[in-house]
Amino acid sequence: MRAVCLLSGGLDSATTLACARRDGFEVYTIAYDYGQRHQVELECSKRVSGALGAAAHKVIKIDLRSFGGSALTDNIDVPKGRPTAEMGAGIPITYVPARNTVFLSIALAWAEVLGATDIYLGVNAVDYSGYPDCRPEYIEAFEKMANLATKAGVEGHGRLKIHTPLISLSKAEIIRLGVSLGVDYGLTHSCYDPVGGKPCGHCDSCQLRLAGFREAGLQDPLEYAG
Amino acid sequence: MRAVCLLSGGLDSATTLACARRDGFEVYTIAYDYGQRHQVELECSKRVSGALGAAAHKVIKIDLRSFGGSALTDNIDVPKGRPTAEMGAGIPITYVPARNTVFLSIALAWAEVLGATDIYLGVNAVDYSGYPDCRPEYIEAFEKMANLATKAGVEGHGRLKIHTPLISLSKAEIIRLGVSLGVDYGLTHSCYDPVGGKPCGHCDSCQLRLAGFREAGLQDPLEYAG
Repeated sequence: MRAVCLLSGGLDSATTLACARRDGFEVYTIAYDYGQRHQVELECSKRVSGALGAAAHKVIKIDLRSFGGSALTDNIDVPKGRPTAEMGAGIPITYVPARNTVFLSIALAWAEVLGATDIYLGVNAVDYSGYPDCRPEYIEAFEKMANLATKAGVEGHGRLKIHTPLISLSKAEIIRLGVSLGVDYGLTHSCYDPVGGKPCGHCDSCQLRLAGFREAGLQDPLEYAG
Repeated sequence: MRAVCLLSGGLDSATTLACARRDGFEVYTIAYDYGQRHQVELECSKRVSGALGAAAHKVIKIDLRSFGGSALTDNIDVPKGRPTAEMGAGIPITYVPARNTVFLSIALAWAEVLGATDIYLGVNAVDYSGYPDCRPEYIEAFEKMANLATKAGVEGHGRLKIHTPLISLSKAEIIRLGVSLGVDYGLTHSCYDPVGGKPCGHCDSCQLRLAGFREAGLQDPLEYAG
């Protein structure tokens, strides 16, 4: 029984991979080289895939940078601290246009070739930072579309399912779940803006992660720059 | 008023671009270098974009070949003639897994950056050769998902629309429409399996095109190999 798991190399996706393994799947992990400024995540992704016993790992190159429009791919400063009302509209500048849609679509292509009907994605609606493509109603709509898009949908052999095991968990709950499933968070990486190869400790993603470990009563195994 | 148009360089997508121009849009055309065996279509795409007055043209590289699974990207023979029942299941070997989903998703990312709420796609449900991602119910589901995926959907400024002006037309009707809108079909290309740079005249796509011109009472300006 095969599944495809999107694996960025961060805390959430590592935990999601552990869930897919727990559910009994032979898991094929996929990472994207999309022109992100923090390329270190691709190395983390590969290490996490191996450590959690994935069957294969693939890195797909897709140049979203050529469109512009996000602090994660453009030469725009990544804001420090958690988003505040004064920072403007509800969607942060670190949002990459249609990212989850592009990533899920490519994972769907691989799933179809593998004969897999299950895709795992580590989105989270609690700490989702205002990204529209992390909401449950979005995931549901993607799943519906995917079933109409593919051979499986036409020929009726197995309905495609998008699993989002973290969607309603807090960061602390995600960390406790991962630890219980044997995830080594020392291999993961979450920072939007690393300093000399180390997480900055100050961006939105670092602050969420650190607060999660604190709340879970655990020590983050990563060494921070700041 | 901006729109993004998927432009493969074939007859259908050229006609679709002409429709987008007729509808008054400033059109941004996008082509995909996805490891297809017939790279000549990328040249056609660029020429057609210029000839029909698009505002800009972008080629996005995405290596679907690394997944395998289709005669259009793998080293599998492209079948000659129209599909028959003996050729097996309803979906032909030239189907590229989740192709329209991947392509539309990337177009959606560009549309979001451009502030465009309209995407044009040249799919056709009449001569669709059994591809699941050319059906109206698929397009409708993609549109619904896209509106949940993006800033526009969250912030409510303009609903995203997927236009498929060819979806219920026969090949002959598409050709007549394109001619009336000034499309030069001599710049386009439709063959799955070109011979020495010329269309083969025998694959499914060539046969559909040739039958379309015959039925429209028009001469195909292309020179065929066979």
